[in-house]
Amino acid sequence: MSKAENQPLFLGIDGGGSKCRSIVVNQRNEILGTGVSGPANPMNSFETTIHSIVESAELALLDAGMEKSSISQLNAGAGLAGVNFKEGYDKIMAWDNPFAKFCLTTDLHTACIGAHDGQDGAVMIVGTGSIGIDVRGDDHFILGGHGFLQGDMGSGAWFGLQAVRRALTSADLLSEPTIMLDLLLKHFDSATHLDIMEAMANKPAKNFAQLARIVFEAEKLGDAVAREVIEQGADYLSRLALRLFERNPRRFSMVGGLSPIVLPFMAKEVRERVEPTLQEPEMGAVYYARTVFELS
Amino acid sequence: MSKAENQPLFLGIDGGGSKCRSIVVNQRNEILGTGVSGPANPMNSFETTIHSIVESAELALLDAGMEKSSISQLNAGAGLAGVNFKEGYDKIMAWDNPFAKFCLTTDLHTACIGAHDGQDGAVMIVGTGSIGIDVRGDDHFILGGHGFLQGDMGSGAWFGLQAVRRALTSADLLSEPTIMLDLLLKHFDSATHLDIMEAMANKPAKNFAQLARIVFEAEKLGDAVAREVIEQGADYLSRLALRLFERNPRRFSMVGGLSPIVLPFMAKEVRERVEPTLQEPEMGAVYYARTVFELS
Repeated sequence: MSKAENQPLFLGIDGGGSKCRSIVVNQRNEILGTGVSGPANPMNSFETTIHSIVESAELALLDAGMEKSSISQLNAGAGLAGVNFKEGYDKIMAWDNPFAKFCLTTDLHTACIGAHDGQDGAVMIVGTGSIGIDVRGDDHFILGGHGFLQGDMGSGAWFGLQAVRRALTSADLLSEPTIMLDLLLKHFDSATHLDIMEAMANKPAKNFAQLARIVFEAEKLGDAVAREVIEQGADYLSRLALRLFERNPRRFSMVGGLSPIVLPFMAKEVRERVEPTLQEPEMGAVYYARTVFELS
Repeated sequence: MSKAENQPLFLGIDGGGSKCRSIVVNQRNEILGTGVSGPANPMNSFETTIHSIVESAELALLDAGMEKSSISQLNAGAGLAGVNFKEGYDKIMAWDNPFAKFCLTTDLHTACIGAHDGQDGAVMIVGTGSIGIDVRGDDHFILGGHGFLQGDMGSGAWFGLQAVRRALTSADLLSEPTIMLDLLLKHFDSATHLDIMEAMANKPAKNFAQLARIVFEAEKLGDAVAREVIEQGADYLSRLALRLFERNPRRFSMVGGLSPIVLPFMAKEVRERVEPTLQEPEMGAVYYARTVFELS
């Protein structure tokens, strides 16, 4: 296909707490190139976010065999973490971006659009954080997503934090023994629990999310504390999904790295209703841009 | 008393996450002057910490009717938050300080020495954080104090965080209703729970500690969720105290602003064993300096 036939070019961006993924697509939604870079949550760092967006876009252009300078021809749609906060949204919208056009929504919204191939439906994201949404046209019904510190139960960061908390109190003999302590000592190559405490002090959500696997490993080894933590997290996620079902969404999908791991522990009604995601969030961002720019 | 009779002069420093208090005392432990300045936790900021220490020392000297330049005659002992972390300790010990002599330990240690008037004993601090210690000579047995994120159950920051977490999930109808939601909406003059979420996003422990009173207010109004949170926090603190009692400490005291508020909810064995603090932590720091410098 000639360059002219590719026009207009779209860029779909999916940015979260750890990674930013971009795709360049042509007018027929064919993916010409993809790029992956670092974190893109403006509530954590605005500078890092815009750097990650531009880097992933340039990588996608190079992957498509195009020049970096073609960035100025792209009609960009971005779904980012942290822009559910007004402060995060305003920072990105005030950015003097390099694109032909640029529109912004939450990563939750673009994940939902992608999962249902542009149609209405509900999704739950269980990755570093946890959140649910049911989209019906302009009506966005959102549950959870209160953030690492204040909520996001059942998320990767929450599971990692529980592992650390339970391990530290068990080391002090203030709670039941758990092999999560042994697994964490091994993970950090630590002599005592104080090394774990020091290693994780003031660390962001993504570092805790990397420890989520410890809980599920411990559960497989028969650890009762790990089992209790998993049941607590899965129960919260089930309640969240059931609240979404009350609105009778057209379709329901689960997104995010922890979804397949936590799903087996969730309520039967939820497990039976989950349908596969049809497209990636980046493509959801393209669909979003098409709607906003009326270029569909 | 003449200047010569006051010699040697000691400075006792108690530094925490919000304030730094200093006292200048003479050889007979008579307090000649006191000074209060800002935060002194080197894990938060080294520059602020040394500024606060020097400022509170100078204020104490002025209060004693002495010159600022007398700082070079002071035998200083400091108990600081954050120096339980090697990084925090090393930063302060590498400081080219203005004192004649300088020694450093944790705020926990000096609070304990102060509470028992220089003798051995155990204390539990329940303020912004929560931690326990039993001191027997050089044997320091420490429990808890794992930090806002990773532990410190039953502390002010923990109670404030629970208030916010429970309020946010109840607003989403994902947990039992609680009047803590109403109290927080009123506190922040907010229209919806999302304003609370945004107001507290990425806030440090001391901001959450300011919300601890919400839990105790709600409990007084008969709120079952608040009662459950208080019982959970108080139960942890009771277990911590009982673990300290296993070592049969000579004396036991509770320190920190939340202690008198949470104590009525704690186990009977703990309530019956609490004894008053005999001296402030700043005096504990003086006792510590006397021991280290062998000037007692």
